[in-house]
Amino acid sequence: MGSNVARKLIGSHLVSGEMTPGSEIGLRIDQTLTQDATGTMVMLELEGIGLDRVATDLSVQYVDHNLLQADERNMADHLFLRSAARRFGLWYSGPGNGVSHPTHMEHFGKPGSTLAGSDSHTCAAGSLGMLAIGVGGLEVALAMAGEPLYVAMPRIWGVRLVGRLPDWVSAKDVVLEMLRRHGVGGGVGRIIEYHGPGLEALSAMDRHVIANMGAELGATTSVFPADRAVRDFLRSQGRGEDYTALAADPDATYDVEDEIDLSSLEPLIARPGSPGDVVTVCEAAGQEVHQVVVGSSANPGLRDFEMVAALVRGRTIHPQVSLDVNPSSRQILLELTRSGATAALVQAGARIHQTGCMGCIGMGQAPAVGHHSLRTFPRNFPGRSGTKDDKVWLCSPETAAAAALTGQITDPRELPEHLGIAYPHISPPREVTVIDTQFEAPLSPEQASQVQLDKAPSIGGLPELDPLPDELTVPVLMKVGDDVSTDEILQAGARALPFRSNIEKLAEFTFVQLDEDYPRHAHETGAHAVVGGVNYGQGSSREHAAIAPRHLGLRLVLAKSFARIHHQNLANYGILPLEFAEPGDYDRIERGDELVLTNLRGQLENGDSVEIRNTTRDQTYPARHHLSERQVKSVLAGGQIPLLKQR
Amino acid sequence: MGSNVARKLIGSHLVSGEMTPGSEIGLRIDQTLTQDATGTMVMLELEGIGLDRVATDLSVQYVDHNLLQADERNMADHLFLRSAARRFGLWYSGPGNGVSHPTHMEHFGKPGSTLAGSDSHTCAAGSLGMLAIGVGGLEVALAMAGEPLYVAMPRIWGVRLVGRLPDWVSAKDVVLEMLRRHGVGGGVGRIIEYHGPGLEALSAMDRHVIANMGAELGATTSVFPADRAVRDFLRSQGRGEDYTALAADPDATYDVEDEIDLSSLEPLIARPGSPGDVVTVCEAAGQEVHQVVVGSSANPGLRDFEMVAALVRGRTIHPQVSLDVNPSSRQILLELTRSGATAALVQAGARIHQTGCMGCIGMGQAPAVGHHSLRTFPRNFPGRSGTKDDKVWLCSPETAAAAALTGQITDPRELPEHLGIAYPHISPPREVTVIDTQFEAPLSPEQASQVQLDKAPSIGGLPELDPLPDELTVPVLMKVGDDVSTDEILQAGARALPFRSNIEKLAEFTFVQLDEDYPRHAHETGAHAVVGGVNYGQGSSREHAAIAPRHLGLRLVLAKSFARIHHQNLANYGILPLEFAEPGDYDRIERGDELVLTNLRGQLENGDSVEIRNTTRDQTYPARHHLSERQVKSVLAGGQIPLLKQR
Repeated sequence: MGSNVARKLIGSHLVSGEMTPGSEIGLRIDQTLTQDATGTMVMLELEGIGLDRVATDLSVQYVDHNLLQADERNMADHLFLRSAARRFGLWYSGPGNGVSHPTHMEHFGKPGSTLAGSDSHTCAAGSLGMLAIGVGGLEVALAMAGEPLYVAMPRIWGVRLVGRLPDWVSAKDVVLEMLRRHGVGGGVGRIIEYHGPGLEALSAMDRHVIANMGAELGATTSVFPADRAVRDFLRSQGRGEDYTALAADPDATYDVEDEIDLSSLEPLIARPGSPGDVVTVCEAAGQEVHQVVVGSSANPGLRDFEMVAALVRGRTIHPQVSLDVNPSSRQILLELTRSGATAALVQAGARIHQTGCMGCIGMGQAPAVGHHSLRTFPRNFPGRSGTKDDKVWLCSPETAAAAALTGQITDPRELPEHLGIAYPHISPPREVTVIDTQFEAPLSPEQASQVQLDKAPSIGGLPELDPLPDELTVPVLMKVGDDVSTDEILQAGARALPFRSNIEKLAEFTFVQLDEDYPRHAHETGAHAVVGGVNYGQGSSREHAAIAPRHLGLRLVLAKSFARIHHQNLANYGILPLEFAEPGDYDRIERGDELVLTNLRGQLENGDSVEIRNTTRDQTYPARHHLSERQVKSVLAGGQIPLLKQR
Repeated sequence: MGSNVARKLIGSHLVSGEMTPGSEIGLRIDQTLTQDATGTMVMLELEGIGLDRVATDLSVQYVDHNLLQADERNMADHLFLRSAARRFGLWYSGPGNGVSHPTHMEHFGKPGSTLAGSDSHTCAAGSLGMLAIGVGGLEVALAMAGEPLYVAMPRIWGVRLVGRLPDWVSAKDVVLEMLRRHGVGGGVGRIIEYHGPGLEALSAMDRHVIANMGAELGATTSVFPADRAVRDFLRSQGRGEDYTALAADPDATYDVEDEIDLSSLEPLIARPGSPGDVVTVCEAAGQEVHQVVVGSSANPGLRDFEMVAALVRGRTIHPQVSLDVNPSSRQILLELTRSGATAALVQAGARIHQTGCMGCIGMGQAPAVGHHSLRTFPRNFPGRSGTKDDKVWLCSPETAAAAALTGQITDPRELPEHLGIAYPHISPPREVTVIDTQFEAPLSPEQASQVQLDKAPSIGGLPELDPLPDELTVPVLMKVGDDVSTDEILQAGARALPFRSNIEKLAEFTFVQLDEDYPRHAHETGAHAVVGGVNYGQGSSREHAAIAPRHLGLRLVLAKSFARIHHQNLANYGILPLEFAEPGDYDRIERGDELVLTNLRGQLENGDSVEIRNTTRDQTYPARHHLSERQVKSVLAGGQIPLLKQR
């Protein structure tokens, strides 16, 4: 039986475990990626572990999230990260170089390699035939130290693409179609592998768009073969020598199968609140729009911006719309500027922002309450934009540009008839100007050992983590619904993000979108539990969503199910993640109830069942854990760091 | 006796008073300028006054200060301002169009006209032969309503320019030389009129640089003649028809005279803390630098950016430096992009930010503590950058670029020898692409009357203002030193600026840089006084620095002297500004002392002396006021708005 691309990638990096879906495997990691919002904690972890120098082929520290510099802490973080990159032997990509994912793809991505990144959209590198997995920061720190990355062996979901995208329909619509079909939990426990004849007309950057938002499906990652499109991309970057072909065997099979006829797709859009709430643009047409934002790792390619520029060129955007453009990398901004696209955008009325994530992570660009915003971003979880009760839609660059011109949601296929705009065919460039002078290469080991970490007073330390008691008596401080994202557990955005390097301060933002008194209550209460619905902790990989509540006393999360990365982060930071054996029990628990768990070590080490007593209501709930043996040890020790210290 | 340019401008717009230095004159206002940080209050004032339509030739509402959109309030302000512009018959220049001063110069400035602006750098328009005065928002609101603008007739300070600037020395160095010679109070009560043969080689934008920072000298405004340079500038903008020559008579004289030999100047730099603390770049050379910021109304011209681009072109900025570039207008960004300057900057490693004021008003770009930042900005008051204990230097684009390349303060004249960089001669363009599609013209009166103000809940109202009691018993809640700026009274920046349309919230930031408990103390105390040194309230025109403390109970400021705009704002908002008759008395008062003023109406209406009793120390201080009859009425009524309502 032939192997698919995903299994080949796993097989060539397997250091422990068996490739049976659900069982834990250990993978050798070739490359790591960290960004500033998660990276400051990773660097503190490296310091805590006592690492001298990274053991990977290549590790890159990016600065792309927190760029507004509203006060002194922001630049202090950049300086700290630069010093840590110099100290530990990483590449450093400073502010202005670009969003990690497209930038990594341009400069460092390599077919056949593994990449672990402390960013949930790390999976975007699957576009190059890499096995790229977004995980919590501590996982990445350990990978840098040469430890394997442990994940549950996913099922491989083959999605066969046939046909060719019609004009006005693009890669974003492909992944929105996946979300329309399968929702935000559709990819849980799976790697999505795209294959089939439909790939031929999808450039490497188109594939990046599709792979990137695999995160929104909850997938472990997405992979594409490394084929001519990948070769052409690497050649355009002057890195033809980094190309190696990687394809599924002709007789490869998949654990799950699906097919999309690209020619049948039409422009799609995710409605406010969830990337999974997808409808056709047609259905949403007519909705008044006050903001359109273009950029982010979900539509980072030159083509995406060139498309918007071509559509607005020589025209004026609607006066009620703010058209915000976030170039995704220095190189892309340079190409856009040379091609005339930047000029066309400026002349039409766009606001060109600095290169980086910007509004995608709630760093600016917050819309006014009740005013609709169309974005080419990957996520629109409630409040992620920085605005409570926001109305953020997710769409393709074509749909975004159409709304910018008309001031309302508009099917771009109407542009020829209504505005006389012909479809602009845009091909990927054969060659681009590669700017690599802005990346600082790792210092030699001798030089690196002389570097002192540049730690401003605003940069905190790692919290103290005590072992899990054998008997846990905890009140339920919070009960939340389904699909709660890490944005809701611990918001990003302009208020909270600047505290990412200071857990004590950051903890004051924990759960405040759902209950603004949680931090105070938790602080007063100490050890406590949270009860959740399905897909608890979806979205961003931020381990802060585990560390900060842990700092406030969270010891137990009892949910219907967990998102992969957050589950791992909870285990890494000594918070016990348990799933209801009977989902109906969720309805029987109320906030304020006292839960008692006894003989925890015994229960966790001997099987996957744990019994929970609700002493307030005199009930008992059977629960299960999905922790590996390794993770059980971590939870019992109070987290990976105390566990490492025990060794 | 021949007339100078300043007197011609005043004479042609005089509607009351006599042109005797110190006496109050009323001026007819042709144009007004408001920006978003002050404009929301102005629009609320227009609503309060009950204005139907502006009575000026032209009024423009800009959005340039508050562009980060960290939460929903920011865009809500933009929408409110747009609706108010539509309602009251203003032009609207939305976010992305540019900093008000260069943008106004490009599109609306007209020789021979008067301009009142609720921004202290409004004076920059003196570059076009305009009489352009920065004042508090209420003054601008009244000017829009057709009322005269009242100012004390200034003395006219003729500064004769001879010679020609050497290579590597530019307009910024001219105004830094003025500040080096005369300090931040040197222009108080004066209009600076530049004349002489040295003008010939200064373009209109060079003059903008010089006129703009007249605000830092404390001058009422700065003026230049309207000559060939102005004509060429207007022609390049396609507005040749707006040109009228305006020159001093050949036998014109000045109240005060000064001369600068441009050929003798060298690169200058203002040291951290004050624009008046100027030294030669040579003296400061070698200081390590981590940030360089280019842009703002103090160096807004195409030339200024082209210069930086030319110097870094084909090179890489120093890896420890963040080179931040803030294009000053949409048009300038377009020209830079077309000329290749944007590409050169991007390739060298610059971060290109959205068009606007940005770090100049503390909206982002805050440096790390203890790390030096070189900026082409006009101001470096302590903390204005958003960083407490900041180290911000002010310099020319040439000096900024040199530091970006070397990572330390570097005399740009050393670039040829040390880096092999020849001086790039840059001429103003003969013609530019004018983008006027982004300005929304005033609606017709019929359309305008249908417009509803778009007021989100985050937009507050005007505070209640009660009359000044005839007897005032007030504790001194605050005693401050010399040259306290409105930034220190009421900070701008990323934390406070978003509340500019909500006095109640904004008041929580009053004086917090000097005493973080002031808002609470003031709130608990009610009526109180502040004691200040010389040049109290220098800097920005923000009337919020009067309204917010007034909201908290401030009724009296007793200082050695006042900055012009803030003095007017205090009177407009019913706070009594008194000057020590004996400056030595300043030393006899302490915080906490109780001051008693009796028979205030009688004292204020009959002469300029007011007696103050310090009941805590049993002392009496003679004080003076410099209020006009009109201003006395305002103070007694509790402010201009209650006074208007009385009518």
